[in-house]
Amino acid sequence: MMTQRILTTIFLTGMVFYSLLAQTNPPDDAFFIRKIYDTALTEGRSYPWLEFLCTRIGARLAGSPQAAAAVEYTRQMLDTMKLDSVWLQPCMVPHWVRGEPEEVKIVSSRKMGDVPLQALALGGSVGTGATGMVAEVVEVKSLDEVEKLGKEALNGKIVFYNRPLDPTQINTFNAYGGAVDQRGLGASRASRQGAVGVLVRSMTTRLDDVPHTGTMQYEEGVTPIPAVGISTNDAELLSQLLQEESVRVYLRTGCERYPNKLSHNVIGEIRGSEKPEELIVIGGHLDSWDVGQGAHDDGAGCVQSMDVLQLFKRLNYQPKRTIRCVLFMNEENGLAGGRAYAAEAARKKEKHLAAIESDRGGFTPRGFTCEGDASIFEKRFKKVVQWSDLLEPYGLVFRAAGSGADIGPLKAQKAFLFGFEPDSQRYFDYHHTAIDTFEAVNRRELEMGTAAMTALVYLLDKYGLE
Amino acid sequence: MMTQRILTTIFLTGMVFYSLLAQTNPPDDAFFIRKIYDTALTEGRSYPWLEFLCTRIGARLAGSPQAAAAVEYTRQMLDTMKLDSVWLQPCMVPHWVRGEPEEVKIVSSRKMGDVPLQALALGGSVGTGATGMVAEVVEVKSLDEVEKLGKEALNGKIVFYNRPLDPTQINTFNAYGGAVDQRGLGASRASRQGAVGVLVRSMTTRLDDVPHTGTMQYEEGVTPIPAVGISTNDAELLSQLLQEESVRVYLRTGCERYPNKLSHNVIGEIRGSEKPEELIVIGGHLDSWDVGQGAHDDGAGCVQSMDVLQLFKRLNYQPKRTIRCVLFMNEENGLAGGRAYAAEAARKKEKHLAAIESDRGGFTPRGFTCEGDASIFEKRFKKVVQWSDLLEPYGLVFRAAGSGADIGPLKAQKAFLFGFEPDSQRYFDYHHTAIDTFEAVNRRELEMGTAAMTALVYLLDKYGLE
Repeated sequence: MMTQRILTTIFLTGMVFYSLLAQTNPPDDAFFIRKIYDTALTEGRSYPWLEFLCTRIGARLAGSPQAAAAVEYTRQMLDTMKLDSVWLQPCMVPHWVRGEPEEVKIVSSRKMGDVPLQALALGGSVGTGATGMVAEVVEVKSLDEVEKLGKEALNGKIVFYNRPLDPTQINTFNAYGGAVDQRGLGASRASRQGAVGVLVRSMTTRLDDVPHTGTMQYEEGVTPIPAVGISTNDAELLSQLLQEESVRVYLRTGCERYPNKLSHNVIGEIRGSEKPEELIVIGGHLDSWDVGQGAHDDGAGCVQSMDVLQLFKRLNYQPKRTIRCVLFMNEENGLAGGRAYAAEAARKKEKHLAAIESDRGGFTPRGFTCEGDASIFEKRFKKVVQWSDLLEPYGLVFRAAGSGADIGPLKAQKAFLFGFEPDSQRYFDYHHTAIDTFEAVNRRELEMGTAAMTALVYLLDKYGLE
Repeated sequence: MMTQRILTTIFLTGMVFYSLLAQTNPPDDAFFIRKIYDTALTEGRSYPWLEFLCTRIGARLAGSPQAAAAVEYTRQMLDTMKLDSVWLQPCMVPHWVRGEPEEVKIVSSRKMGDVPLQALALGGSVGTGATGMVAEVVEVKSLDEVEKLGKEALNGKIVFYNRPLDPTQINTFNAYGGAVDQRGLGASRASRQGAVGVLVRSMTTRLDDVPHTGTMQYEEGVTPIPAVGISTNDAELLSQLLQEESVRVYLRTGCERYPNKLSHNVIGEIRGSEKPEELIVIGGHLDSWDVGQGAHDDGAGCVQSMDVLQLFKRLNYQPKRTIRCVLFMNEENGLAGGRAYAAEAARKKEKHLAAIESDRGGFTPRGFTCEGDASIFEKRFKKVVQWSDLLEPYGLVFRAAGSGADIGPLKAQKAFLFGFEPDSQRYFDYHHTAIDTFEAVNRRELEMGTAAMTALVYLLDKYGLE
């Protein structure tokens, strides 16, 4: 309590100091960043916006009616903010639908009889047709193993990819990166060896009953075969059973692919007062998978990005540079939005100083990753790191690493790219699942992320990167 | 994925290196700390122990049968580890029971009729008797306001303390520290002015329907009056209603105080090989409030402390100094365990080099707070901070601040005290409530805390503090 009293005193002293100086000097950076946090934690809009997006619209795969609703909802919210412009940017997106709920089961195990498995078709997978298929299962741990086993072992079989995420990775994105090739390319590689379907262990360090979906691709020339994710508990069960007997699995999915649909990025901006031609982008992706509510992935990143503009407006902060919020469409299964944005930027010869993407969940902020074209990276990274003292009180650090999928195409235009980096421990509990819902997001953690992003945009706007 | 491959290579190279050197050199610190994390994240026992403590024993207020079960369970778990000693240390604890569930309601509001309020009697409160009481409510924001209003305004009334936690505090413990005087002393100060009961807004930054309990004291000489916590949503409602009309509340609680009971701290230790007389204590508190399951507060700290010993055993690490795990009894409403431990340590002239308490929830680790007698603090803190490079890869920093209630009494014996400090954003969502359950704890976050504590104990053991 003593600590509290001291802090309050400092805070109040600061207020007086600020009001005395406000007319004559630009606000002190530390003090303005403190104001950003105060405002985000008391008058932020991220949380109620996220509630609407999750509970009133819900899952919003690109091309779905819900994705269209999300475009309209976020445009309307941006419209309420008295920005300088709000517009939709068209892009053509794939239209894949899950169709009838999956049925996946072990068929007549000697030991256990029929055993239903918790499964979700992977995004982009072909369906099995209404009658489904039955085949014997072969477990593998890698794409290489599939190639080694070859047609003799795999022809007519269902390949079961079961290499777990490495739990010893401190950053769970490294664990994900080390396993996700199974989901992305597993079906193609198995198909080349004559397999008729694949099961993929879900991309999570947890042991639970929640299947994870996510994107997969068919490499050119391969016969498309159905691919489903199964829960980690079921993966463990299946693996154990395979040590004791041969196992056949029944697999039925109703997935269909339809012609591409017109969809949109949603964009709003505050025009800069001194260097309006220099753009600072903040964004997340508006689409989600078709299960759950896309709360952490990536409703959180969208509402945080919108809230950056809202906070600047509320704080009466007039940026020198143009601050643009971009809600990208179709990050999950095509990146059409990110590509359309970069293409139009190139066409219009827009100059992007920097872009920040929030697409790692609405958890407590830990900092920002930084990347950029090699010709500019070192000098700019040095400049950014000089701001560390201002952000350290909020637990934020900068590190050199990949930023975000949607803003990636801007790298070629020499934009400096940031990935907002929250704590990663819980992200893959929810990622691409039915449990990525509004309730899984903590209000304060979300709002602290908004504040962190706003603080960085403020510094970028004020000081640039030269 | 590229990053992942590089990391794996480094890791495997490290393994070979280690095995070559293992016989001749002490393990490299960075590498051994990496081993601690690997082992905690793959073979830690914190999570299954916590599951048992929470779901099979549950809430365990000091003096309750469940507290006795928790003592027996944790002793048995320590017994399985082949430690050098495991014992129970007696202490006399208060025996307070909630009794019949509270009933608190607004009586016949002109506007709303009867309105039930979500309430929990505060720990230590007297009961109202079976028939309860009705009185008019007066809202205040502070203890000072009660004194200013005085007997004229408050005689025969129920005082409603409604100062919220400051949401702009980045560390939520500062927000708690700035509001908790209302809970601790509110009843005493209101009673001095003739009030007959108090309602206290729950100690959380959330707006929800979950009432929070917690300890309160009657100052010497005051007439004990009943005190209950009400949910923040109900506090908002009540406050709003009070702006429109006078409000009477019906209050019935069944609390009773019985004679003190014998209970125990649970202690296990690995005796040091070189300086067995120098003690390093790790601990949490085994008691919890009588609602929920005491998962974050403080089952987490207990199982983490036990797991430090388990990890050392599993890693075949023989400490130079004696490492002692202490599960303290009665932190929540008396601190009998912490005092008994320090008293016996003084009696036996034990030398405590350091003590670490984990009592801020099982969330992602951010670092350690440090405190100690002024005569030793600066020098030792400097030494500790030199270890920052080793712990920074795990997101850990040291800062000077209060440590923990149970180990506090060891400060007089010049022990250097650490508070394990996880991320604080979610803690007061659960603290002292029915929703502080096993499901609220994330396995990886919990295990990362165990690893952080083990790493610090390893460094303290290896290098001491001179």
